[in-house]
Amino acid sequence: MSHEPESSLTPFFTPTGIVVVGASHNPTKLGFGLARNLALSGYAGAVHFVNPKGGRLFERPIYPHIADIPDPVDLAVLLIPAPFIPQTLVQCGERGIRAAIIASGGFRETGEEGAKLEAESLRIARSYGIRLLGPNCIGILDTNLPLDTTFLPPPAPPPGDVAFLSHSGAIGAAVIDWARGQGFGISRLVSLGNQADVQETELLAPVAADPYTRVITLYLEGVSDGRQFVQEASRVTREKPIIALKVGRFESGQKAVASHTGALAGQESAFDAAFRRAGVIRATISEELFDWARALAWCPLPKGRNVAILTNAGGPGVTAADALEANGLRMAQFQPATLDSLRETLPPFASLHNPVDMLASASPQQYADCLQIVLADPGIDSALVILVPPPMYSTGGVAKAIIPIIYAAEKPVMVALMGERMIHEALEHFRAAHVPEYRFPERAASALAVLARRAEFLASPPEEPVTLTDVDYEAVQAILASSGSAAALTDAYFLPQEALTQIMTAYGIPVPAPQLARSAAEAAALAEQMDYPVALKIASPDISHKSDVGGILLNLADAESVMQGVERMVTAVRAAKPQAHIEGVHVQPMILEGQELIMGAVQDPQFGPVVMFGAGGVEVEGVKDVAFALAPLPLKEAHYLLAQTWAGRKLDGYRHIPAGDKTAVLDMLIRLGQLAADFPQLAEIEINPVRVLPDGQGAWALDVRGKVRNEE
Amino acid sequence: MSHEPESSLTPFFTPTGIVVVGASHNPTKLGFGLARNLALSGYAGAVHFVNPKGGRLFERPIYPHIADIPDPVDLAVLLIPAPFIPQTLVQCGERGIRAAIIASGGFRETGEEGAKLEAESLRIARSYGIRLLGPNCIGILDTNLPLDTTFLPPPAPPPGDVAFLSHSGAIGAAVIDWARGQGFGISRLVSLGNQADVQETELLAPVAADPYTRVITLYLEGVSDGRQFVQEASRVTREKPIIALKVGRFESGQKAVASHTGALAGQESAFDAAFRRAGVIRATISEELFDWARALAWCPLPKGRNVAILTNAGGPGVTAADALEANGLRMAQFQPATLDSLRETLPPFASLHNPVDMLASASPQQYADCLQIVLADPGIDSALVILVPPPMYSTGGVAKAIIPIIYAAEKPVMVALMGERMIHEALEHFRAAHVPEYRFPERAASALAVLARRAEFLASPPEEPVTLTDVDYEAVQAILASSGSAAALTDAYFLPQEALTQIMTAYGIPVPAPQLARSAAEAAALAEQMDYPVALKIASPDISHKSDVGGILLNLADAESVMQGVERMVTAVRAAKPQAHIEGVHVQPMILEGQELIMGAVQDPQFGPVVMFGAGGVEVEGVKDVAFALAPLPLKEAHYLLAQTWAGRKLDGYRHIPAGDKTAVLDMLIRLGQLAADFPQLAEIEINPVRVLPDGQGAWALDVRGKVRNEE
Repeated sequence: MSHEPESSLTPFFTPTGIVVVGASHNPTKLGFGLARNLALSGYAGAVHFVNPKGGRLFERPIYPHIADIPDPVDLAVLLIPAPFIPQTLVQCGERGIRAAIIASGGFRETGEEGAKLEAESLRIARSYGIRLLGPNCIGILDTNLPLDTTFLPPPAPPPGDVAFLSHSGAIGAAVIDWARGQGFGISRLVSLGNQADVQETELLAPVAADPYTRVITLYLEGVSDGRQFVQEASRVTREKPIIALKVGRFESGQKAVASHTGALAGQESAFDAAFRRAGVIRATISEELFDWARALAWCPLPKGRNVAILTNAGGPGVTAADALEANGLRMAQFQPATLDSLRETLPPFASLHNPVDMLASASPQQYADCLQIVLADPGIDSALVILVPPPMYSTGGVAKAIIPIIYAAEKPVMVALMGERMIHEALEHFRAAHVPEYRFPERAASALAVLARRAEFLASPPEEPVTLTDVDYEAVQAILASSGSAAALTDAYFLPQEALTQIMTAYGIPVPAPQLARSAAEAAALAEQMDYPVALKIASPDISHKSDVGGILLNLADAESVMQGVERMVTAVRAAKPQAHIEGVHVQPMILEGQELIMGAVQDPQFGPVVMFGAGGVEVEGVKDVAFALAPLPLKEAHYLLAQTWAGRKLDGYRHIPAGDKTAVLDMLIRLGQLAADFPQLAEIEINPVRVLPDGQGAWALDVRGKVRNEE
Repeated sequence: MSHEPESSLTPFFTPTGIVVVGASHNPTKLGFGLARNLALSGYAGAVHFVNPKGGRLFERPIYPHIADIPDPVDLAVLLIPAPFIPQTLVQCGERGIRAAIIASGGFRETGEEGAKLEAESLRIARSYGIRLLGPNCIGILDTNLPLDTTFLPPPAPPPGDVAFLSHSGAIGAAVIDWARGQGFGISRLVSLGNQADVQETELLAPVAADPYTRVITLYLEGVSDGRQFVQEASRVTREKPIIALKVGRFESGQKAVASHTGALAGQESAFDAAFRRAGVIRATISEELFDWARALAWCPLPKGRNVAILTNAGGPGVTAADALEANGLRMAQFQPATLDSLRETLPPFASLHNPVDMLASASPQQYADCLQIVLADPGIDSALVILVPPPMYSTGGVAKAIIPIIYAAEKPVMVALMGERMIHEALEHFRAAHVPEYRFPERAASALAVLARRAEFLASPPEEPVTLTDVDYEAVQAILASSGSAAALTDAYFLPQEALTQIMTAYGIPVPAPQLARSAAEAAALAEQMDYPVALKIASPDISHKSDVGGILLNLADAESVMQGVERMVTAVRAAKPQAHIEGVHVQPMILEGQELIMGAVQDPQFGPVVMFGAGGVEVEGVKDVAFALAPLPLKEAHYLLAQTWAGRKLDGYRHIPAGDKTAVLDMLIRLGQLAADFPQLAEIEINPVRVLPDGQGAWALDVRGKVRNEE
């Protein structure tokens, strides 16, 4: 467990002395609550109060001015009307305080005037080197230090091992109350408020460094800097798990886009991709955040996905088995020895196979024995114990019997306690023993699945993005510069086809680049440098539908056929369109038949370059068989994109569809990601379709579109 | 509210006198619990006890023999060892008892011996006209009558309006306990056990007829007779909502199939289709069953999907808005008058637009006023009130202020009460007032969505399946009979192509049926009866690759071209394959380009004919863009299949893809459904692809496969 390195944030978490500016005698004021919480929280450092009215509060003097406070003091908590904040920050700065929590509201969240006040406050803070938390937040709670700078009514949450960082103060308050009732404790709670200065990303490491914190939960309404978040979180998640609930999906709304990739990529896909890259576990609903946190805080990690279910009732066992499968876990197959032991332990009509139905008569001792038996089976990675209030025994008795076995186990065990009042005694035992319990098997199964994901994440070492050196950065830079100047003064423009072909080629993405021959002999010479068969197309600005006038010839297998073909084609075209200007003939290798798919990249406003991969064609937006990853891509992320989509899985071959060249697809994805990462001005780029040839024969970018946004 | 019609099940629900066989003095025995519950439940009829040991129990004599019991007695509850059940049923029959609950276990669930005992018990019961509930069940509970034939420890569940029918006795017991803690009451609970006689379907109507029951919840491990269930449930759901949790998905396992339809159709898709057809709302996890039941029991139904959110904290408001959208509901747009009223009521920095953030300072009066304002807006169909424990007021005060408004409203209002101990007072108020409250906005949103679905279901009148009369049933019967005899003695066989073409034609499904012409003139005459353009194919058993020898001609536009084409083709083929026997030329209309899709039908073991529709091609199993419905199809079910899939939605046209002939697709679906329903021996039939021409031009079954299973 790492220790917190000294930083400008240190006074927020381990202050030596705190001043509450706005402490109040009036019990109906928040300034009273704040003073009370700080005075009574058990905080060991100095606590000072400031209020121009003076007097005494909680056995301390109230100083009229900040300048009067004696040492030590390194953290100020400000709960005064917003207009007084700037001058108070000046006083803090003069007094040498370098950290302040602004609990007051009345800033950016209230409109333009408030935003100005916030900017002014930040300016002053920066000028004194003061770090700010808030404004408009409920502050910091540390149950182990302890420290409580909130104004929330008592009781404070019980000490625990789950940290909570929140963009919403109200949810923080609700979570404290909820934790009390749900039987888990909070280690640290930080309410971020408007984030004028300190934001969520900077807090990840200090919160993770807290030795009491075993899991970090986040309530996010966004992130301040996408890439920085990914970088910080990637480091932290190797040490401690992070679970995030990201809200505000409905606000993402509509946007003007130029490609399928643009239409399909959105804030939420970028968040998904970013969280995955950073190893952050994303909760989709509030309940999951703490269902999962308890499991991660209290359980050892499983070695695999095979689960044993023990139950005293058939129905819930079946429900649990369904839920395990729905969560990507597997019903373990028991070894013969396990079945033998269960048979010796249980009555004749018990069901020995997974889920093990020990029958309604199951005693605490049978629960304990069977749990021990299944945990000893090397093919079992975790256990889910279901307890319906038994007719003959108390649920508390069962809890007491199995808790020692759960303690001793190196495999995670969760409990589904079905009922409410009759399970109360068991519930208290399990909570005290830090065994995660859930009312329904489905919630237990979802928590078990998160443990498995966490174990797999830790088992898979971090991978840096692939950086290919055989790309020509300067060439693309030059192309974009010249096409930019050509595109006059528009903010955004589409790249011409020729520029796109050059860009693809510079980054090693194969495009069928037709080469111009001005004679039959030249055509044959060009063809000799390509792989046969080749195709010929008439090169004329005056002919749009080439095939109508005999202007396309396919599948020419040797130089002889090419020469004859050119003669024939020119004759035919001249006959059909006597007035057309013929520049020559385009020669290109034939692109063989193969699977088709789409890949693209966009620049996400929060997370930068994002790569999309999936089933292409015009129907991509309807079928939505696509996946996203942050660019540039580590190899495993490229593999993930293939594994996640039908278009990608199909590359292994399917029924009569032959396997495609996966290596070439992975290579193209990595090159496209590198391109998008190298050139942020490439707002959208899309290859649709990519034609994938059979294994070993490569892949081609058949059609490319690209849009550039001039940097502002 | 309908009354329960008299039936053979009447004694289970309104017995005039009950005998407990196996009543026991010993408080550790289930037979004691059963006697206690019945004696103390408040049941107004006669209660008799039988035990060979005699004595007295709960102020009643214990009779040694059933024959001794005085009138009235019309229901027996048997809790004695399984081997004694048959002879006891004889005694019940002799005593004139016509209904028995067998609570004892030891029957089919224990293996072959038990199964024999169960069959013997059923045989005896039938011979006396006794209806059986169970064996291996916990009996019946009616909190309003009241009546309690279970042996569960007290207290019984509070009286209420949610009925619960369960295949699992243990879950029934857990639900009783859970209901107590969750603040809702049970009207009737029926534990079905092994269902030797009475099963879930037969109980739907009697339970729905209970005037206290407002919603019926089901825990199902399957259904006894799929079609009968759909029929009964369809009737009941028009009166009262049914919510079902169907478990046992993981048991469905693998199967041998002959088509994509067979591979994709499964028990779960059939259950989905059946529940939808019957108007049964399917819960996917246990928690939803009662989250939704409370909403359906207590709330008026909304007129639409527009929801207003009232909150005293921004974060939970955003979470709720996300959840509403995720559940298919819409954030309502407020009318100007609503915004004006909110502005007058709320402080300046409150957020007036949906979600309405009334700020942490929101008073009970402001909650009440704002709720009244939004409910008065005609563009709002329902409201979700979020209550985070406010710093200044008690949550109980808010509850008391808004409950009268919720009572008076004709729109549903739900409450998300965030927290645990600090919301306890509010929670008690809401539960007493029958206002559904949830700990998290997500669960409230999912319940609101169920109300909207229920309202839409009731607004859409039931529709009978379409029965087309222009089909030739006898023709198909004859084809199947003759192909069956030709297929020797195999259990299952594939239909030959010719038979499939005839079957399709008999049911009015257009197949490109080439017609044989023996001369150029005959070909022209045939073509004249078709739509031009037509195609010609050489008809010869000796030529497999027709195009290689000039044996195919496409796009012939008139009789003249057809005649010339035949001459040319025959000459060319004779030249290329002089020894081939030429029967003539096949003439068929050209099938134009168009969208392609798949449709198929299988016979589900539980629900009979099921139709599949979706995106076809070889990739259908990978893409899984398919939907299922029970056959034969009402028109709205055919429309549902299209609306549910991308393949169906695309028929309206998409980007450059022109619209397809939807009417023809709907017609083909209905015909296929009728065919599958008419011929249960058609185990699998699949059209892949269906080629859909532009609007008004029809659709073609380009390739048909069919498998017949001989009836056993």
